[in-house]
Amino acid sequence: MADYPKSVRINEEGPREGFQFEKGAIPTARKIELIDSLSRTGLRKIQVVSFVSPKAVPGMIDAEEVVKGFTRAPGVSYTGLWLNDKGLQRALATGKLDVYGSISLTASERFLQRNQNRTLAENLKAQEATIAMYKDNNVPVERGSIMAAFGCNFEGDIPNSRILELCRQIFDIAAAHGLDIKVLSLADTMAWATPLSIRRVVGAVREKYPRLEISLHLHDTRGMGIANAYAGLEMGVASYDAAVAGLGGCPFAGHRAAAGNVCTEDLVFMCEEMGIATGVDLDALIESARLAEDIVGHPLPGAVKNGGTLARLRAKIAAA
Amino acid sequence: MADYPKSVRINEEGPREGFQFEKGAIPTARKIELIDSLSRTGLRKIQVVSFVSPKAVPGMIDAEEVVKGFTRAPGVSYTGLWLNDKGLQRALATGKLDVYGSISLTASERFLQRNQNRTLAENLKAQEATIAMYKDNNVPVERGSIMAAFGCNFEGDIPNSRILELCRQIFDIAAAHGLDIKVLSLADTMAWATPLSIRRVVGAVREKYPRLEISLHLHDTRGMGIANAYAGLEMGVASYDAAVAGLGGCPFAGHRAAAGNVCTEDLVFMCEEMGIATGVDLDALIESARLAEDIVGHPLPGAVKNGGTLARLRAKIAAA
Repeated sequence: MADYPKSVRINEEGPREGFQFEKGAIPTARKIELIDSLSRTGLRKIQVVSFVSPKAVPGMIDAEEVVKGFTRAPGVSYTGLWLNDKGLQRALATGKLDVYGSISLTASERFLQRNQNRTLAENLKAQEATIAMYKDNNVPVERGSIMAAFGCNFEGDIPNSRILELCRQIFDIAAAHGLDIKVLSLADTMAWATPLSIRRVVGAVREKYPRLEISLHLHDTRGMGIANAYAGLEMGVASYDAAVAGLGGCPFAGHRAAAGNVCTEDLVFMCEEMGIATGVDLDALIESARLAEDIVGHPLPGAVKNGGTLARLRAKIAAA
Repeated sequence: MADYPKSVRINEEGPREGFQFEKGAIPTARKIELIDSLSRTGLRKIQVVSFVSPKAVPGMIDAEEVVKGFTRAPGVSYTGLWLNDKGLQRALATGKLDVYGSISLTASERFLQRNQNRTLAENLKAQEATIAMYKDNNVPVERGSIMAAFGCNFEGDIPNSRILELCRQIFDIAAAHGLDIKVLSLADTMAWATPLSIRRVVGAVREKYPRLEISLHLHDTRGMGIANAYAGLEMGVASYDAAVAGLGGCPFAGHRAAAGNVCTEDLVFMCEEMGIATGVDLDALIESARLAEDIVGHPLPGAVKNGGTLARLRAKIAAA
């Protein structure tokens, strides 16, 4: 019927997204509480903090304390986000995180110019310094990523040819440095994707690089997150970023303007109901989602935490 | 790539759903304001009120006044909902609504027993009286509908065989009364559907009745609404119920517990972005969605009204 994967891997980004975007200080202890809660759900990868300037992101001023405080669970990777050498050094200095590098390009030149004051060519060149930084610190690099892969607020639609050119550049850089890129992350940074463009872009990449694992990073700003994830499943995509309870949405612009990633528990619900294994205990994850809502102090957009699971209803029916 | 329809028809149910479910009285004038606003969007079918007991649904006590007050736009059908002869008589008495009948069965016997104190057999028999009522009033009946078609909180999963049996019963009744059923509405009354079960059930019905038009009624309680609509599009389904701004969700149980139908403007956004015509002016519809939010006085779950359209961004980029 469709090329669904048998199982998917979910990269939980809720703590980092939520702590980063919420207005007002969240106590360090509560951040740790959420990470520890997520560690008990069966999720295998959790992005816990970002190491960025506290001036730019005040909510991450306690990143080191958060990392120090949470309890590592066996079999779970804990990662951080950084944007430069200083951030990477902070991540490494914790001695507690799983540090992975990536070759990160952006599909939109105008976005790059606005955000990093770089042309596409300059950004490509900057990757050399990034890779040198990873090599100097023995950080493995097995991942490429393309931001704004499905469209850009400043440049508009992105053609497949651009994505394939960026893939080629990623593999060229990797080859020049003896790196083996196994995963390509396609990010819908500004929520331009629809199920059709997911099929179009993923299809083009899969056709050209059939053995490359594709991962999707899907923002829910226009409500397409879960439909886009479904289109990914149909194309055989088995790796997704997601945020528990839909953490990361801006609480001051209605429910989902500038929303975060697709909601983890809604994604797990969809997958498990369709027979696609996630390894996640949905009831435990819903507990984490409710905890996240309690911590931020306002409703978060995830639906299944309110609507409830079908497994629970089926059990109730079977017991009746 | 997929069997997308070229265009879809959307049956707007926001006014009825929203006025019915919101706590607190909404002034009649504001209900009329929303209907008149929706009439300017290009939507061709709008369900404006339900004629039910004011004891059961206090928010619909002014149904007649609402119908009296709104302005019919050319080319738009305005419908009401009723559950019995008294309700039908009220709808007919307005002299202003488009009154259509349907043969309505339910896939779950336990749901029927709880809600109408009937067995499946008794409900089947009750359709005879309903059809007699329509015949007596010259109300056309071209529609069959199956409630709880994708699962039931009290009975669990619903097999394809049950749905096909109910289809057969609908056509048997229709044949016995010389009625020509052209549309079958499959309702996910309790939000059990996933894209996979949409494909499964729609596929089974289409295989057996290839010329029957299928319509989907999708509740968003578990966040699957838009993904389920997408699965419908892939199966060629060209008719959807929807609610502007996602009206109908319970405002007292978080964002989307016991949610209403899939959000109209999010559905229109997805279709139009995928090249599927809706006939709807998305900007005008977003104005209606914001009006709906203003009327109910709390955030409503639709995303595109907050996230904005891509057409607007593309125009801005082209003008720059």
